[in-house]
Formats: sequence, C-alpha cells, structure tokens
Amino acid sequence: MLSNHHTFRPIYGDTDMMGVVYYANYFRYFEAGRTELLRAVGFRYKEFEKSGFALPVVNASARYHAPARYDDELTLETTVSQVRFSTVTMTYRLTRVTDESLIATGETRHACIGPDGRVVRLPQEFLNVLGATT
Amino acid sequence: MLSNHHTFRPIYGDTDMMGVVYYANYFRYFEAGRTELLRAVGFRYKEFEKSGFALPVVNASARYHAPARYDDELTLETTVSQVRFSTVTMTYRLTRVTDESLIATGETRHACIGPDGRVVRLPQEFLNVLGATT
Amino acid sequence: MLSNHHTFRPIYGDTDMMGVVYYANYFRYFEAGRTELLRAVGFRYKEFEKSGFALPVVNASARYHAPARYDDELTLETTVSQVRFSTVTMTYRLTRVTDESLIATGETRHACIGPDGRVVRLPQEFLNVLGATT
Amino acid sequence: MLSNHHTFRPIYGDTDMMGVVYYANYFRYFEAGRTELLRAVGFRYKEFEKSGFALPVVNASARYHAPARYDDELTLETTVSQVRFSTVTMTYRLTRVTDESLIATGETRHACIGPDGRVVRLPQEFLNVLGATT
Repeated sequence: MLSNHHTFRPIYGDTDMMGVVYYANYFRYFEAGRTELLRAVGFRYKEFEKSGFALPVVNASARYHAPARYDDELTLETTVSQVRFSTVTMTYRLTRVTDESLIATGETRHACIGPDGRVVRLPQEFLNVLGATT
Repeated sequence: MLSNHHTFRPIYGDTDMMGVVYYANYFRYFEAGRTELLRAVGFRYKEFEKSGFALPVVNASARYHAPARYDDELTLETTVSQVRFSTVTMTYRLTRVTDESLIATGETRHACIGPDGRVVRLPQEFLNVLGATT
Repeated sequence: MLSNHHTFRPIYGDTDMMGVVYYANYFRYFEAGRTELLRAVGFRYKEFEKSGFALPVVNASARYHAPARYDDELTLETTVSQVRFSTVTMTYRLTRVTDESLIATGETRHACIGPDGRVVRLPQEFLNVLGATT
Repeated sequence: MLSNHHTFRPIYGDTDMMGVVYYANYFRYFEAGRTELLRAVGFRYKEFEKSGFALPVVNASARYHAPARYDDELTLETTVSQVRFSTVTMTYRLTRVTDESLIATGETRHACIGPDGRVVRLPQEFLNVLGATT
C-alpha cells in the first residue's frame, strides 16, 4: 500500500517531566505523517478541506515501545493500510534514526465527511491518489 | 472497580480548525482523569514518582463518538479496569453534561517501573489504594 | 477593574523534561483565565464568537518568576487592565496556593474583529459586561 | 549577531477553531528556532543540559501580525540579540514563504542555570559558539 517516510526531531515542549516525549504528542506526529504522505502523492489535505470534505479521526491507538527524547532524530513511516467505502485507515511506525530502535506504532481510522457534515463515499479523486478502489 | 468522575471544560487551545477538540488532546484529558481518580482515593501520583516509581503508558487508544467543543461542560469517568502483576489498565468515558451525549471512550495500559528503571511488581501500597490484589 | 480568580492544577502533559511547566503552556492557562473571568460576569466568549465577533490576541507576554510543577494547586488572577475603542488588555498573575509564591505574570492584548473580519469597536454589550466605557 | 533560518509547516493540531495557529503555539516554534540556531553552529542544547546547565526562559513575548494557517510554509529567523553575564536574549521573526508576509515577531530571555540550580555565568564554551564576549 501507499507509504511514506518523513524525519523530524521532537522539541523540548513535546517532552514531559519523565524526560521523554509525552504520550499524547505521538498522535500529533502521526497527523504530520498523514499530511506528508498525502503531500508526497500530490494531494494537499488543506485543499481537500477547502472543497468541503474532511477526514476526522474515528479511532486512534498507539503502542509505546521505547521512549523518544528531545532532539532525537526520528523517522515516521506512514502507511495507508485500508481503504473502504467511506473510511481510510493509516498505520504508523516510528523509529529512531541513530540506532533504528522502534519507538512507537499506531493506527488511526478516518471517516470521510462531506460538505453537509454527513459520512460520504471517499471522493474518486482521493481514491485515485491512494491508488485504491473500494 | 474503582471509578471516578471529574468535570472540566475544553479551552480554546484544545480545539483545531475543524472547530472541535483535536484528537490528541483527549489523551491529555484521560491523563487528568487518572490523576483525579488517584487523588480521590488519597493517592498522589506525584508522590509515587518522588519515591522512584512511575507508570508510563504502554498503549493507549480512543474512540471518537461525537465532537467536543470549546467550553462544553464535559464529565470524564475514569475506571481502573484491570490490575495485573506489573500493569494497570484504565478506561475512560467522556460525556457532555448538557445532553449526556457520549463524546469519546478510551483505554490506557500502564507498566510499573521501579527506581532502577525496570518493570516491577505494583507496590502493595498502590494495590491497597486500588482495592486490588494480583 | 474587573478581576477574577480561578484555581487549577497543571497536568503531567503540561510539564517538560526540566520537570516544570513548559513556558508556552502558561499562555494556555491565561486563555482559561480569560474565559473564566468573562463567565464570572455572565458573558460566554463562545456565544460572542457565534454572533460573529472575535478577540484574537495581538500581543502576549509572560514573565516567569518561579517554576510551576505537575499537580501544584495554582490560582490565576485575571484582570481587565485596559479597554480602548477596539482593544482589551488583560493581565495575569499566577501564584501557588500552598506557599503563595508568585509563579508568573503576563499580559495579552486583544483586538475586536467583527463579522466581516475587520477591526471594529468593542460591542456595547461587551463594554457593559466589563463595566467600561471607551 | 548570530542568526539562523529554518522552515516548517504548522500541523492541524497547532490550529484552533478560529482556523489559525493558536497563539501559544508560536512559542513552541520559537523554541524549535533556538534549537536549530544552536545546532547550526555546532552546539547541541541537549548536550548542554546533560552537562548540568540549562537556559530556562525568564520572559517571553510575541506580537501577532497576521495569522498562520495549517500547512503554510513558514520561515522562522532566530537571532541572538543580546548576551550578558548570565543571560541570553533571542528574537524571532516568522514569515510566510509564499507571499513573504510577516506573521509574528517575538523575544525570549534566558538565564543560565548551573548544576546547583543557581544562576551562573554563561559557560565560555557557549560564549565561543555565539561569538560573544560578556
């Protein structure tokens, strides 16, 4: 399936008093991964929303394998793991660049909402970009 | 099992451009729920950490049923759903006070880490507070 | 001038690896202070925005006197310090309840934006609530 | 004085229901700017803290000129504007790449804290990196 890598470093404000990245902030990283995956295939999520659609998260999960720390160089692999009539599922795999250790894995499922605020079929344009059929 | 309710209101900074609370921020609410549940039974998590223990999250998940908005009055029910040798699982149920609608549910699992940074048995003091045996 | 106190506790996610509340998060507390000050005089900022107005921040500053920590009981005093034709200035004073030590002070200035997105005179309804004339 | 540029894009989670980046989050961007400025001259702030020093913020301010939005390409210019015996001041200038519009400016002042938690002279190693004398 469609996949993308991007690299970034946690900022100081992402950490907590345990000295590691606070658990909720991984979901922020996952969101950046989604945006970057779509950008890599020429799809700007920002424009998608301007046209009246949205892909709100319906469920999200993460598994924390090892702590990430401030300024670690991290690589996030984001993959479109499932495309259904009106939902898309993405999976995430976050590793530290220096030692290739696994930091976290996760998943988010998104429902497609149309201009009237109701769940709708994923637009064909979006399916084309994902190389998916439903 | 041990359970607690606390009420709060999302701030403006918790929302995103969709006009609703950003998905990662629910995990911040869940964390506040854990602290409040423990406080309600006379256990201050802060002191627990000062004594060298910690309960880092090993996995976390949320299901988003309906959006919460800025300044909504919300009630979070936090429940200790499972206690094992070295892990505790908490579940969360977030509802809007005005219409009792379900906003989100979630779960976090925590491993107990001792002063040497390794997974250890949950301290007896903590089990007593939870009214649990393992 | 109009003033209000509210009490809260920083969550774990508000702290950083220095073991204290991250500097940007005080501005989140200040925002909660504004909402609570307005609520205390019967003005819901949420409704104000629904009617097409907004009070975006045009400048903000904070002075950090002593660190706040996770779960400290803090009191934030929010004061309307200046009301002009189209701007409102709020000041903030954050103290720790247990020892009355001063944690931080701050200031935010807000411009009133009308339904057309331009700076407008503060609505009379808002001035009345603040007990101010311009 | 020493200066550095870095480019980034706000994530969805940085925005608020006004559709623009939430005011507190600019201080997170400023922090990333500091780290990147120091990295550009071969100084890793992370290592500085490991050696027992820290540069906590003593005051911070921002002026918001125009809103930044989700996924805008932004450039942050970070400059060391003043070096004193035990303090460093940084200034920030954030612009949108596409139209060169000014988004925000800001300033943070930092005190140097030594291994014993007290304010100390800025280490010579740090002054050398900044090309500064005090």
